[in-house]
Amino acid sequence: MFDRSLIGFIGICCLPPIVLLYNLPNLSLQWIIIQSGIFSFGAGLLTYRLIPTISELTSTANLTGMDLNKKGNPKYSGKKIPESLGICVSVVYLVCVILFQLFQWFSFPETVQLSEYNAALTSICFMILLGFGDDVLNLRWRYKLVLPLFASLPLLVAYAGGTSVVVPDINFPVPLREWLGMTFDLGVFYRIYLLMLAIFCTNSINILAGINGLEVGQSVVIAISIIVHNLIELTISPNSQQHLFSLVLMIPFLFTAISLLFYNWYPSRVFVGDTFTYFSGMCFAVVAILCHFSKTLLLFFIPQILNFLYSTPQLFGVIPCPRHRVPKYNPTTDKMEAIPTNLTIINLLLMVTGPLSERKLCIYLLIFQGLCSCIGFGVRYFVAPYFF
Amino acid sequence: MFDRSLIGFIGICCLPPIVLLYNLPNLSLQWIIIQSGIFSFGAGLLTYRLIPTISELTSTANLTGMDLNKKGNPKYSGKKIPESLGICVSVVYLVCVILFQLFQWFSFPETVQLSEYNAALTSICFMILLGFGDDVLNLRWRYKLVLPLFASLPLLVAYAGGTSVVVPDINFPVPLREWLGMTFDLGVFYRIYLLMLAIFCTNSINILAGINGLEVGQSVVIAISIIVHNLIELTISPNSQQHLFSLVLMIPFLFTAISLLFYNWYPSRVFVGDTFTYFSGMCFAVVAILCHFSKTLLLFFIPQILNFLYSTPQLFGVIPCPRHRVPKYNPTTDKMEAIPTNLTIINLLLMVTGPLSERKLCIYLLIFQGLCSCIGFGVRYFVAPYFF
Repeated sequence: MFDRSLIGFIGICCLPPIVLLYNLPNLSLQWIIIQSGIFSFGAGLLTYRLIPTISELTSTANLTGMDLNKKGNPKYSGKKIPESLGICVSVVYLVCVILFQLFQWFSFPETVQLSEYNAALTSICFMILLGFGDDVLNLRWRYKLVLPLFASLPLLVAYAGGTSVVVPDINFPVPLREWLGMTFDLGVFYRIYLLMLAIFCTNSINILAGINGLEVGQSVVIAISIIVHNLIELTISPNSQQHLFSLVLMIPFLFTAISLLFYNWYPSRVFVGDTFTYFSGMCFAVVAILCHFSKTLLLFFIPQILNFLYSTPQLFGVIPCPRHRVPKYNPTTDKMEAIPTNLTIINLLLMVTGPLSERKLCIYLLIFQGLCSCIGFGVRYFVAPYFF
Repeated sequence: MFDRSLIGFIGICCLPPIVLLYNLPNLSLQWIIIQSGIFSFGAGLLTYRLIPTISELTSTANLTGMDLNKKGNPKYSGKKIPESLGICVSVVYLVCVILFQLFQWFSFPETVQLSEYNAALTSICFMILLGFGDDVLNLRWRYKLVLPLFASLPLLVAYAGGTSVVVPDINFPVPLREWLGMTFDLGVFYRIYLLMLAIFCTNSINILAGINGLEVGQSVVIAISIIVHNLIELTISPNSQQHLFSLVLMIPFLFTAISLLFYNWYPSRVFVGDTFTYFSGMCFAVVAILCHFSKTLLLFFIPQILNFLYSTPQLFGVIPCPRHRVPKYNPTTDKMEAIPTNLTIINLLLMVTGPLSERKLCIYLLIFQGLCSCIGFGVRYFVAPYFF
């Protein structure tokens, strides 16, 4: 359960936020964030305690799955693993966020923007409901694609920010700023872009999956990246309320997701289900939209974007697409082998590295996710300032 | 499916709101309500179309139940009925309300109070999630009691109204107004009262159940009563925004619930599940709290209050409580017979009237619900003014 590399991974992940939090110049902000951390730690513990109980319930309800990547391995083969444990994580998360809302509202009524906070809660909660419904009822694709759209509408209504974008200071091939001005109002197209972002986030995590620990692991890396970004921004300009808002939503997400990771890490004792992937995707979309850092968020989604682009021939039916696009497990070597016709970056990585054990494969993919986040930060803080 | 008495019941129910709407003096209000009606009619049609599809999915997912009140009847016995169709109704409801929010915000941005609207959506959505989770996972009682509490917290935070109550003008046994003043501030106790109200509403509909059509039927009667109350208030004072807000939430509820009633009416082809009872209870609590008519709502809950009070010995374990407290079905006479040890008003009614067919029993209970609403209106508009 407490795999050494998992502990190391979590340790490395948590270091940057702690250092940044420690160096935060504004002490009252620091105090709010610490309180949120304490709440979230409690939520994480509760999740950790509840998962075994809830996994019994999901097993009884026949929400179980076979581990495809262990077929033929006598140690694990034929075991039914409880599915959809995302429901436990996400409900604890919602309760934690609601309680913190109550607490904040008693302590600092002026800092809470209720309409946005509640829009965020509505969208996330609706997405959890959809994900859980999908796990239980096995919805068809057309429903799956339409419902995230509705789930993100409350966000768009509550979105109080502008719809203008800053025009990059580029003179080649055309002098953009001379043509368009400093800022350019995209109007309703900006809202359509935000809608597409929400749909992309919820689905892109769902299709980079199938390896023990990968869904939750990548979500943890992205959550950490967002938290680090928020803390950097708060260090630069302590009055940016929206980054505090993002932190208050991301910190409980991080702690509850880590609790789930302990159970979902190789060899998985629970599966997370679409409930979790949809929930986490929506959480990221929500904070990026309401806190106005959608472009930065996309920098943390580089592996998901690559995976999506690489998958397009299968997703749009040019190449036949099996139900599960996981690599092939070889029980003799206990290693995963690439299936080159399954166009995911998981198989791509295996084609580069050769066969890997499932545990190592997940670790490599998470390291890749982390490296991409580092590149993202580089682009955001060193390259982007040249153009904006 | 289109039972004559069901059509009559719906017809009688819909008459008062139509007359009141027609006589509404403020034409722009009338127009908003008609638009909401058109939206909701579409939502009702969609629900009607979707229920067969979704009931296949719930059957496949093993969410089915036996109809206890037809045991031994060769025509129905042994048939498995799809359960939890509340999920279909409630998701369509949410989508409709969200779309109407978007539409309203484009048309009349100043009339929408976003924070309250979104708090309402959060609470309702969380309650649906809990209800569906309960149907799938069969949660234990302690979870059931705690979670509605959390689901209603966003409401309390968003509740912007006062916490004072008008003191009744009563001089016996003590001159209340002399002692307490015209109004009395209950402070935090008022919020606790609202919390208790939400928990009561969600659970009280759930325990007055077990007869084909009863759960949905009583919800329809209560929804109509609320709509009539809102329309009367809007006729008296056309500026009471909160009653418009309540209508915008209640009208789609009414239409989607009626669609479900067609399938749930005797003999039921689908069951509604805890998803529906929790969802409907929360909808009522939400509008009553945010629109400040909690006392009036309790007048429409008279049968539920009586049933709760009559049930207390079993609910608190003084008398043993079986899992289902329904009356006994007699296959020879095709009638329901009272079980006097099951303390519900359903059995009480059967003890008064003697054995009844399940269909008639439901109709009588709904007539009783309707009569209680009439008494409620009498108290609200003719008795209460003497004291306030």
